[in-house]
Amino acid sequence: MDEFSFINSIKQHTYKQPSVVKGIGDDAAVFRQPYRDIITAVDTFVEDVHFARTTMAPFHIGFRSVAANVSDLAAMGATPAFYLVSMIIPKTWPPDELDEIYKGMKKMASRHHMDLIGGDTVSGPVLSVSVTVIGYANMNRARYRSTSNEQDIVFATGYLGDSRAGFHMLTTPGSYENELYFYDRHRKPLPRVDFAVGLSNLKRVTLNDISDGIANEAAEIAEASKVDIVLYDEQIPISAPLGQFSPKQQYEWKLFGGEDFELVGTVPEYDWGHVKEIAQQTNTPLKRVGVVERSKNPGQHNVFIVDRNNHKKPLEKKGYTHLADKDKKE
Amino acid sequence: MDEFSFINSIKQHTYKQPSVVKGIGDDAAVFRQPYRDIITAVDTFVEDVHFARTTMAPFHIGFRSVAANVSDLAAMGATPAFYLVSMIIPKTWPPDELDEIYKGMKKMASRHHMDLIGGDTVSGPVLSVSVTVIGYANMNRARYRSTSNEQDIVFATGYLGDSRAGFHMLTTPGSYENELYFYDRHRKPLPRVDFAVGLSNLKRVTLNDISDGIANEAAEIAEASKVDIVLYDEQIPISAPLGQFSPKQQYEWKLFGGEDFELVGTVPEYDWGHVKEIAQQTNTPLKRVGVVERSKNPGQHNVFIVDRNNHKKPLEKKGYTHLADKDKKE
Repeated sequence: MDEFSFINSIKQHTYKQPSVVKGIGDDAAVFRQPYRDIITAVDTFVEDVHFARTTMAPFHIGFRSVAANVSDLAAMGATPAFYLVSMIIPKTWPPDELDEIYKGMKKMASRHHMDLIGGDTVSGPVLSVSVTVIGYANMNRARYRSTSNEQDIVFATGYLGDSRAGFHMLTTPGSYENELYFYDRHRKPLPRVDFAVGLSNLKRVTLNDISDGIANEAAEIAEASKVDIVLYDEQIPISAPLGQFSPKQQYEWKLFGGEDFELVGTVPEYDWGHVKEIAQQTNTPLKRVGVVERSKNPGQHNVFIVDRNNHKKPLEKKGYTHLADKDKKE
Repeated sequence: MDEFSFINSIKQHTYKQPSVVKGIGDDAAVFRQPYRDIITAVDTFVEDVHFARTTMAPFHIGFRSVAANVSDLAAMGATPAFYLVSMIIPKTWPPDELDEIYKGMKKMASRHHMDLIGGDTVSGPVLSVSVTVIGYANMNRARYRSTSNEQDIVFATGYLGDSRAGFHMLTTPGSYENELYFYDRHRKPLPRVDFAVGLSNLKRVTLNDISDGIANEAAEIAEASKVDIVLYDEQIPISAPLGQFSPKQQYEWKLFGGEDFELVGTVPEYDWGHVKEIAQQTNTPLKRVGVVERSKNPGQHNVFIVDRNNHKKPLEKKGYTHLADKDKKE
């Protein structure tokens, strides 16, 4: 049984607490309080499964663990407020390196004025960092994957594939340009909180954060919204220095490379101007990358890619698998 | 660096979010919403550190993981509402056993009408279950360890040492009485939520849940409230069938045996009648076990035990260490 099917197998179909707005099935859960909604999510990262000491210093492990969770809040349009940390620590980990993990967490958390309000540490055979985040959204302004309509514009923030390229540089000896830029993109991702929260005036915007590659995240939106999504290969935003890699690498990494922690979303055409404005105000690179279409076959909701020759083909459903199957993918 | 010192080392001394009422340092954190307070805590349990397959079926692992967290909410006087689960699962775990873990969680959660609203599962080398719980309390009615005053009555719920006795029976072959009772007390603990929430009319009551033995939990109250606590050996409540064990075992287990998930607390004498009434209404065995005193030496806050001969001596500070050091303790 893989991760996905297990989470689905334990999903409740009805909720007893009347304050639940959204349970399992999006980037985070939502429950309602007077005047606002509370958003919460949890994610666990395990050494040598999600990160390795060969490519990450302890500081980065901490920074990224919190960043990945903050990115889930961004994908919900929520403002981060609190986090709790539960760690498994092998007895062999030196105290000063633990301290570095915490410094990394704190650095990321401070960017968003988050408070650490709880946690525990237990001993065990492998380093594991589990982060729970809690944030706020205005009532009925949490963002879901399920709200895309046909003819919506599909957009993406930032530059995709950079994190994957940084990982490549860190693990494949060679001569590269702009190495520090790519290292940072891999080790110190900056979730798009300001942009996502800035959209709070919009009645309807669909968001998903790019933790497993835009192909996979777009497929989640297509599935949840029961639509098809068409992406334009040439519009997928990449950074200039990604051009140093082969066309095949660029294609793979921008579409299937994980952990950029950018956002992919959809909005009605008439709100596109407003979205662009917020992007400008929050210094967020923003690109129109596709369009939402009615699903051709009822019950099948797919992602297509249109290449430079205007050929349209279905995009493979393959997610990002962290350290494990890197080499198989290329 | 042990668990405790690491958590203390990362504790924030000031909070940026104005809604924080209590950060790290009690059984759970508290933040304020209009009309009520929200309580949250996280705990992680690792195979062969906190539980072993030799003494726990998968169902029990799930049941207890949620119970331990619900007990933290009880210790805060909070009503459980939600939980999130983050699991590390070795690839060798069969799907049907995973399902049993979940059934155990659900069983415990259902007792308190809790909804599972989030979670993730990742693969890794060791089974680990991390549970985040969220609950509600009336405004200014969350309960802390820091509110005891001298002359307060000290009380305890239930019967102490049973869980430890159950563990002993499961790991030390022998001929015992009431085995099933003790197995259940060890594998399926029932936190004292109804009793704790029932006390919500009281202006001041101090609570702590007994996860690491009453000696340790009373010491936490003494420390946080800057008082001494005196316990009466003969008043510590034990179940009748615990009498089958040696006096030394009974003494060790009732004072230092962990994971009973009962409550220890203090109240002013004038509220004792009300506490007894709530105990009766909620079918909660309740015993007056001691008294709060002014600390003899400023800056030193201790727990004392008075034996049947009226000899008073300081109670050792030793916590419960799950599976690890069991034998060393006896």
